[in-house]
Order: sequence, then structure tokens, then C-alpha cells
Amino acid sequence: MASMMAETVETLLKNKRYSSLRDVLSSMNEADIAVIFEEVENDSIPILFRLLPKDLAAAVFALMDSDDREMLIRGFSDSELKEVFDELYIDDAADIVEEMPANVVKRILRNTDPEMRHTINEILKYPEDSAGSLMTTDYISLRPKMTVSDAKKRIRRTIADAETAYTCFVTNDDRTLLGYLPIKDLLLAGEDERIEEIMDKTIICVHTHDDKEDVAREMSHYDFAAMPVVDDERRLVGIVTFDDAIDVMQDEVTEDIERMAAIAPNEESYFKTSDIKHARNRIVWLLVLMLSAAVTGAVLQRYEAACASVPILISFIPMLMSTGGNCGSQSSTMIIRGMSLEEIKLRDFFKVVWTELRVSVIIGVTLSVVNGIRIWIMNHDLTIALVVSLSVSGIVVVSQLIGCTLPMLAKRCKLDPAVMAAPLITTIVDAASILIYFTIAAKFFNIA
Amino acid sequence: MASMMAETVETLLKNKRYSSLRDVLSSMNEADIAVIFEEVENDSIPILFRLLPKDLAAAVFALMDSDDREMLIRGFSDSELKEVFDELYIDDAADIVEEMPANVVKRILRNTDPEMRHTINEILKYPEDSAGSLMTTDYISLRPKMTVSDAKKRIRRTIADAETAYTCFVTNDDRTLLGYLPIKDLLLAGEDERIEEIMDKTIICVHTHDDKEDVAREMSHYDFAAMPVVDDERRLVGIVTFDDAIDVMQDEVTEDIERMAAIAPNEESYFKTSDIKHARNRIVWLLVLMLSAAVTGAVLQRYEAACASVPILISFIPMLMSTGGNCGSQSSTMIIRGMSLEEIKLRDFFKVVWTELRVSVIIGVTLSVVNGIRIWIMNHDLTIALVVSLSVSGIVVVSQLIGCTLPMLAKRCKLDPAVMAAPLITTIVDAASILIYFTIAAKFFNIA
Repeated sequence: MASMMAETVETLLKNKRYSSLRDVLSSMNEADIAVIFEEVENDSIPILFRLLPKDLAAAVFALMDSDDREMLIRGFSDSELKEVFDELYIDDAADIVEEMPANVVKRILRNTDPEMRHTINEILKYPEDSAGSLMTTDYISLRPKMTVSDAKKRIRRTIADAETAYTCFVTNDDRTLLGYLPIKDLLLAGEDERIEEIMDKTIICVHTHDDKEDVAREMSHYDFAAMPVVDDERRLVGIVTFDDAIDVMQDEVTEDIERMAAIAPNEESYFKTSDIKHARNRIVWLLVLMLSAAVTGAVLQRYEAACASVPILISFIPMLMSTGGNCGSQSSTMIIRGMSLEEIKLRDFFKVVWTELRVSVIIGVTLSVVNGIRIWIMNHDLTIALVVSLSVSGIVVVSQLIGCTLPMLAKRCKLDPAVMAAPLITTIVDAASILIYFTIAAKFFNIA
Repeated sequence: MASMMAETVETLLKNKRYSSLRDVLSSMNEADIAVIFEEVENDSIPILFRLLPKDLAAAVFALMDSDDREMLIRGFSDSELKEVFDELYIDDAADIVEEMPANVVKRILRNTDPEMRHTINEILKYPEDSAGSLMTTDYISLRPKMTVSDAKKRIRRTIADAETAYTCFVTNDDRTLLGYLPIKDLLLAGEDERIEEIMDKTIICVHTHDDKEDVAREMSHYDFAAMPVVDDERRLVGIVTFDDAIDVMQDEVTEDIERMAAIAPNEESYFKTSDIKHARNRIVWLLVLMLSAAVTGAVLQRYEAACASVPILISFIPMLMSTGGNCGSQSSTMIIRGMSLEEIKLRDFFKVVWTELRVSVIIGVTLSVVNGIRIWIMNHDLTIALVVSLSVSGIVVVSQLIGCTLPMLAKRCKLDPAVMAAPLITTIVDAASILIYFTIAAKFFNIA
């Protein structure tokens, strides 16, 4: 649909139908306009942007692609720049400043009002992946002794700036967090009740230096639309809103998935990444895995003589290696995902190993039987059927145990479990599979 | 921390310190109490549950493990059952009814008031993964001709039931959706302004039969805390709230990750799944992949003679197969994740193939050079170094092309791209790798 809209918009633009264009764009949601901006010619963006009403323009600006944003800023007059930044929410403004080159940052900060400049600088001081860097400082704060009617007056004065008005936070004069009050409860309360009587005193908050992934997890645990962020003295300094938490969760999942496929995590989207960067993100792990697979090769080399005397053995190598690899990655995937959803904890180590052992016996026996029968029927050779079947059982059990223990050991050593996943496990499992297979084959065929 | 609290709670319970227990629990958030309920002895749950204040008890009830919930319901008197269900949000009540056995459902419905019973039945009629089954019918609806002051009165009357009070939805008398109004704008407006003058008329909504994963994606696209759900006549029938959307997103990601590791998706958590179920979820794909790996084996068997005459060839098989497998799964992972984040669309097919081709050439050449030098140094055999190097280049390019095209073809055929991922691609890539390797080797060593 967006690409159809983009065509309509471009046609209107080419025919200079500016007032229809303004009507069409004004009726749309900022997220959809941002998608259209990605699809139209770059030259059209400044004209379209200037047709938008001021508040909608700022909302679209916050959602745009960062290259387009930089292009717009470079084309802005100082007063246009000030206008857009005055309308932005403070956390979006800080994010935008962070990604701009130094000379653009200077121009932005010169053209924002002193208070915003100060706040942006404060937010930029926090470490990149911290709650502080994610938060907004626009929130509604109330005092415990206020009456509901005072509170409503205060909210009407300050709410225009607040990105989200789901929850009010109650602090004392030195900004220590005392509790919170959903807007809903404020609307339900009598005008003369005091805030401290109706607020929820359960204090749940995160710290400015907490990792943003932990913040997102906490928010999802508590189903909070906004999470208060406090500093070392437990003073409220900002809030993180659910939309930013969702973005963090999505990024984290992408990172995990990429790591599990042996790709270095990358913040850029697929098409924005250069060829060299794509290659670099993948090549390091490929090299490591390629060289470590040479170990499997060396193990296999020890059995060259066996292969030469019983050549049929060679043809089962791919099947055994791939079964081992698949079992290992199934187990590791279950465990890694279970740990990141916090269904599996480190203290469950032995419970996990025991579960995987039982499951692997069921799987191993089933695969062995199916495989043994298939080989017997196709090759009419009971010995080779027996050797392969026994190997499958052994490989399944060992692979699942490697697959479940490595991610937990990684976590125990404070490494990212996803890094230890599929590819590295596959390499270890490959070598183990070859060893198991030829050890069993040696017994049956009397080869060394 | 939760397990420390669980111990404290159990100690207080053993010493019959009921009033302290009530104080401790009442000061906690429902999500944390639900975690404690998972950790304490099953026998303690009913006593603890009865110590909770009514509204907190209902909130905890909605978050509990479903087995524990069934146990509690079986122990409830009819009046207790009614009390808990009266406090529940309607979408939670419907979810709970859905998962209970038939005899428990009957008892629940007998003990809820007629209006709730009717609504639960309506929600349960929608298909399991639809917006209708996810929505709640408790929302704030306003009429366009109301003044702000009328609206506030109406809200005060109806808000206690509403799960979320972030946004009011404006409908006409036959419930057709006309627009929406954030609570924030309502608080800012003058008392005599009419709703139709201040509401946002951009209509963004989902349909009762839309897939819940699409609903979650739309909500994340628009950063909505609540998404209106309409029926075939565009009448507003409910809203989906952000917390439920986050859960859907998490489940979707788990499913994708499991599919990519060749595991049949499973709604239960790791430890709640029986051994047989664990085995069944993994065994189907393992069998398919094991049997398809036999194809690679058959390909390899054609080259038994070559292996026998140049035995050193065998030892590079694991390295070549694993490099191919890793390249293929890197590409497929990038494409699958890109598609599920909607960064990559089907119409980008040729752009993706062209990108992967360029990247694969860079990677292929690099790996070839490193590998060639290593083999030359270690084996002092220029021919084998050359054969393996050329094979690596060919395998990297072919694997990446297979890895990027298969998921897009799957999506084109309306199959889940994740199903076509890592393991299936690995199997195809394995066979291709063996073919490429021995074709090149045959040229250099004059073997057939």
C-alpha cells in the first residue's frame, strides 16, 4: 500500500498540486509518511517535508532514515532547524544529535533553546546502551501533598511536552521517586483527595546505567507503558516508554539470531550495509570455523586407511555429520531461547542435561532404527547397517549434550550464549561424530 | 531476587505470620507475586492467594501458570470463583476460559454475570490466532457530539473497567469508528470543545480476523499503545493493548528461531514440555534431513574411486561442507530476519541476489587465499592447495546464492521462510559442495 501511496504523492508533486498534497499528507499517520519518504525520489523529500503541518513534520522527522534526515538538516535555514527541534520529543532529539557528524551537531545545538541543549547534553553523557541514553526527560511529575485538583492543573500546564501521558510519577522536592499514579486513577479520584493517598507506593524503577536490554525485559515483565529511570541518589531523571522498549527488544532478537548464524551483529539494515561491511561481518567467524573444521579433517585423515579398505564408510559421513549438527543446534537453540526468555536459569543446569539426555535417547533410538532398516534394505549389508545405526545413536546423544551444555557454560562465564551456538557447536559436534563413527567401525571391520 | 523472596514468603507461611505475609505481598507488583507462586510449594498457593487483596489477587491470577490456575479454580467455592472473575479484565478471562477443561469452563460460566459470559463467548468465537481472540472489549468510547466535559463524566463512569486508559475511541451510534483521542489531548482541551473538533480523524485499525502477528507489527509500526479492532461493518468491537502485542511478538520470534533450527514450534515452555513431545518436535525434521543427507552420501559414493586413489581428498570434506553450510545459513538468516522486519520485500529479489553475489565473491576470494596458503604450508602440495582453494570459492558463492534465494522463494509460495532455513539449506548446500569439490578435483587429478 505504501508504494501505491508513494506513486500518488509523486504524481501530485509532479503536477504541482501542492494543496491536495498537503491535504493527503495531513490525513496520514507519521509512520506511513516516513515509509513514503523512503520510497520517493530524494529530491522530493524537502518539498514534501515543508508541506507538512509543524507537529506532523517533527513526528515524521523523528522516524526518517538518518541519511535523509541529514540531507534535510543541511538544507534547513537556522529558523527551520529551530522550529523542527522545538517540536521534537527530547529523547528523539538526543538520538538525532548523536548520529549526526560534528559540524551538523554544532549547528543543531546553536539553534535549540538553552534548556533543550542542556538536556540533550545530559542524555548524551550516558553510555550508549544504557537506560539513560534511551530515556526521555519529558514526563509528568507530581508531589505527594498535591490534591487531585492541583495535580490536574499542573498536568494541563506541563502535559503538552510529555511524550506519553499514561502514568504520573510522584516525587518529593529533591526528586526522589515516591510512587506512581496511572492517569486513569487520577481521573477516577475525587478532586480533594491527596496524591499520596491514591498513589501506588510500589517502587519499580531502573537505574540510568542499567543495560537497555534489561530495561526492556523489566518493562515486558511488568507490562509497563513507561518505566521510571533513577540516578545514584534514587532521584527520578527520566522515563523509558514502551515504544522504545519494543525497538530494543527487536534489535536484541536480531542480534541473537545473527550471532546464532555466526554473523557479527550489525546495526544497519540489510540494504544500508556496504558489501565490504557485509563481508567483514561474516568473514571472521567463517575463517575461525573453517580453520577449526580442519581439526575434523585431521581426525578424518587418521582414518584414511580405513576408508581405503572399506570405501562404503565414506558415503555415510555427510549424513552422520549433518544429523549430529542438527541435533546439536536444536538443543542449543532451545536452551538459548529458553535462557533469553528466562524460562531456563543457570541453576537448572543438571535438570537441563538430564532432560536432554532422556530426549536424546528417544531420538537416537528412533533415528537408528529407521536408518538401520533403510541401509539394510538398500545395501543388503547387515554389518554396515549396524555400524551406522550404533553411530547415529551415539552421535545424537553426544551432540545434544554438547548442544545444551555449551550455551549454559558460556552464560556461566558471562559470555553471550548465542555466540557459542549453532556454528561453533556444529564444528565440535562434527569432530565428535567422526570419532564416534570410526571408533565403532574399527571394532566391526577390524581396521585401525 | 524472586527466589530469595519466595524463601521469605515460605518461612513466614510456615510460622503462620499471616498478617506480615499479607503486608509483604500487598506491597508487591502482581508480576513478581506470580513469579513467587511458581517457586513455592504447590500446597502454599491457595493460602497465599487468599491472603491477597481482591484486585491484586485477580491481577496475579491472570499471570499465573495455567496448571496452578486450574488447581486454584478446582479449590474455589462458587462465590470465590465469581469474585475473582468479576475482577478480571475481559480478555484475560476469555484466555483463561479457553485453556480450561470443559467441566471447569461450565462452572466458570455458570458463576460469571450474564454480560461477561456473553462477551467471553463472543471472543472465543474468533479464530485462535486472530485479532478478535487477542482483543479486550473494555475500552473507552466517546461520541463526536459530546463536549469535553460530557466526555470526562462518561469516562469517570466507565473507566474503572477499562484495562488501558491511554486513548479514547470515537464512534457514532452504530459503533462505526470515526477517530481517536489520546487522553492527553482530552486533558488539554477546554471543557466546552466538542470531541469531533479535537479528535484525530486518521483511522488506523485492524480487522477481527487479521492475524495477530500482523496486528503486533502494525502496532509497532505506529507506536500505538492500543489498536482498535473493527468487524466487517467497520464497527468498533475491541482494542488490542501493547502488552499483549509484545507477547505476540516474543512468541513469533521464538517460533521463527525454532523453525530455523528445524524444531517444530511449541507453545509450552521448555520444562513444561514432556520428553515425548520434545522428541516429537525435533524428530520429524531430523528424519527428513537424515534421509536427504543420504543424497549427499550417494553423490559422495560416486567418487569412492577418486577418494581411494587420492586419499588426501577425504580429509577436506568436513571443512568444505561446513564452510558451505555456514555461508548458506548466514545468507538465509540475514534474508529471513530482514523479511520479518520488513526491511527486505519480495520485489527486492534481484537486488538481494546481486548483493549476495558481490559479497560472496569478496568472502570466497578471502577464504580461498587464507586456505590455499595454509594447505600449501602444511601439506607442501600445490595441486591440492589449488583444488581446495578453487572449491572454497565456488562453494561460498553457490551456498550464499542458495541461502538467499530459498527463503524468498518460500515466501513467494506463501510458505514460512524460516522453515526453509538453515537445516534444509545446509542439506542442499552439502550436496552442492561435494559436487563442486570433486568436479574440480577430477580435472586436476585426472580421476573420474
